[in-house]
Amino acid sequence: MITVNARAAFSPEGPFKPTTIERRDLQPHDVLIEIKYAGICHSDIHTARGEWGPVQYPLVPGHEIAGIVVKIGSEVTKYAVGDRVGVGCMVDSCRECANCRQGEEQYCLNGNTGTYAAIDRYGQYTQGGYSTHIVVTEDFVVRIPDGIELDVAAPLLCAGITTYSPLRHWGAAPGKKVAIVGFGGLGHMAVKLAHAMGAEVTVLSQTLSKKEDGLRLGADRYYATNDAETFKKLAGSFDLIINTVSAKIDINAYLSLLRLEGTLVNVGAPSEPLDVNVFSLIGHRRSFAGSMIGGIRETQEMLDFCAENRIAPEIEVVSADQIDEAWERVLASDVRYRFVIDISTMEK
Amino acid sequence: MITVNARAAFSPEGPFKPTTIERRDLQPHDVLIEIKYAGICHSDIHTARGEWGPVQYPLVPGHEIAGIVVKIGSEVTKYAVGDRVGVGCMVDSCRECANCRQGEEQYCLNGNTGTYAAIDRYGQYTQGGYSTHIVVTEDFVVRIPDGIELDVAAPLLCAGITTYSPLRHWGAAPGKKVAIVGFGGLGHMAVKLAHAMGAEVTVLSQTLSKKEDGLRLGADRYYATNDAETFKKLAGSFDLIINTVSAKIDINAYLSLLRLEGTLVNVGAPSEPLDVNVFSLIGHRRSFAGSMIGGIRETQEMLDFCAENRIAPEIEVVSADQIDEAWERVLASDVRYRFVIDISTMEK
Repeated sequence: MITVNARAAFSPEGPFKPTTIERRDLQPHDVLIEIKYAGICHSDIHTARGEWGPVQYPLVPGHEIAGIVVKIGSEVTKYAVGDRVGVGCMVDSCRECANCRQGEEQYCLNGNTGTYAAIDRYGQYTQGGYSTHIVVTEDFVVRIPDGIELDVAAPLLCAGITTYSPLRHWGAAPGKKVAIVGFGGLGHMAVKLAHAMGAEVTVLSQTLSKKEDGLRLGADRYYATNDAETFKKLAGSFDLIINTVSAKIDINAYLSLLRLEGTLVNVGAPSEPLDVNVFSLIGHRRSFAGSMIGGIRETQEMLDFCAENRIAPEIEVVSADQIDEAWERVLASDVRYRFVIDISTMEK
Repeated sequence: MITVNARAAFSPEGPFKPTTIERRDLQPHDVLIEIKYAGICHSDIHTARGEWGPVQYPLVPGHEIAGIVVKIGSEVTKYAVGDRVGVGCMVDSCRECANCRQGEEQYCLNGNTGTYAAIDRYGQYTQGGYSTHIVVTEDFVVRIPDGIELDVAAPLLCAGITTYSPLRHWGAAPGKKVAIVGFGGLGHMAVKLAHAMGAEVTVLSQTLSKKEDGLRLGADRYYATNDAETFKKLAGSFDLIINTVSAKIDINAYLSLLRLEGTLVNVGAPSEPLDVNVFSLIGHRRSFAGSMIGGIRETQEMLDFCAENRIAPEIEVVSADQIDEAWERVLASDVRYRFVIDISTMEK
């Protein structure tokens, strides 16, 4: 076992405290990563507070991990010491089911292994990236291209792939009209990515408070959803809507914005069910779909796409001592647009 | 005006009474059709009883119409006197919007003109096929191939196209696993069509009471949805599910039966919204969609497909005096599988 420093929640109420956790000894295909930056995702908060089901404490969240390979197992072929790498929301899967074989490990029929708060194949409880080091099998590690700094690379591993995958899957491209609902961590990445894919991009945010940012980051249009006129004006407009909002919204109002054969994709899941008026779907052969992160191959493709297109999230770097404060600000939507923890500020 | 015989509901409560209605004089592109058979669709009942909004009385339902052209307008090019033809759920649309130009007149952005209970471009209230004759513009008339008798042709114009269109759109074909929810007028057509398209077909019906019919008509498997084991056994099985049930069902239970990237398509619309648990969609990039009849071009394609593949609905022919009784039996699900009115039994 390798003992490493981390910051952990010891109860649903927090706060974070310094601690040490054990990482497994390197198996033949494992790499040991020295974590440089870890993004803060809203789902870290849901999970650590037990809102998505019971978890074990102490819990070390973090599934937007960027760092450097510092040691490799005896049979590792993909990475070498010194490589710049990332780890996202999962660290393993069965690799044998139909979905894994298709490269969609996130949809593993036996359940993928979450980067934290999951039991891995060794029977260990996984602990995430709010930590100095992590051990991960090479197949679940991606390469961070030279053009992307490690601090901005971190949020790509969740916020980036979560929006990239549905944009690609549902064909965001020139000539397509894409709307992004919500302009936060995921939303601002969706805008940058959809714009780079050549789509016409519209932001649908509660208010116009971030309009200037939206247009600067790649949106062609920006509307407030607290204005009922928005829904009248944009009825039947979009080929694709990516909904990044996890709260319960009036989904039928958003479905009405789709044109013939358009699709609304939820990338967040509200805990309450959504009331879908089936007439909203039948009227124009519309679809309401869901998407969850992306596979490993697609995550690498996304990083390469971001490097080629010089896309990076807007981040605010915080120290390890500021995690609790950052979480409060995430809950208050007071972040433009992603917090990233500088792991060098963590006790070594 | 042309005065023709019909059977009409004079109030939401019925019963049907003989009456006469006016059909417009033939415009240059109109054809006059002598109706031979008219199918009875569940939506006739919903509409005539005002359950889908207020309607005018007397009301003549019927949107599954098969007959013979007996007169044509001065500029008609597609049909000649004596042609065997059909009319479905719509008799006109704007023909200018993007959807109409794509051949998807059912999704006309200005609203298609329903075969009954709609206002047409002449300002007349449309009346349907429970009648001896109808006048329709040639562009909304389809040709019934020689291989299909007129009595069985009638239900194809709604039950046939409503199931054919989503099966084609979502790719029912060899190697695909398709489930049909509900085994009534629409469901039994869906089974025949999906089977002819080469898909592996499973029926999901409340009980096993019609299992023998299901297997005889083309289903490979038949399961009862009142048995909870069905949902466990079939979890993650299907590429496509066509839900023909208009009542509110536990949609999440059915979504759980879809495999990766599968789609559940509702062709009926319950009046209450359905509670969609978004996790049901996100977990395997599933879609929940809707589909409404089909365009005119596709309706012709469906009729030709049925002729080539010798597909016809199972029908029970009733006389004009039996409409009320037939409606009661439709409401009691006591029909295998579609009532068709023999219009020759109507007073001339």
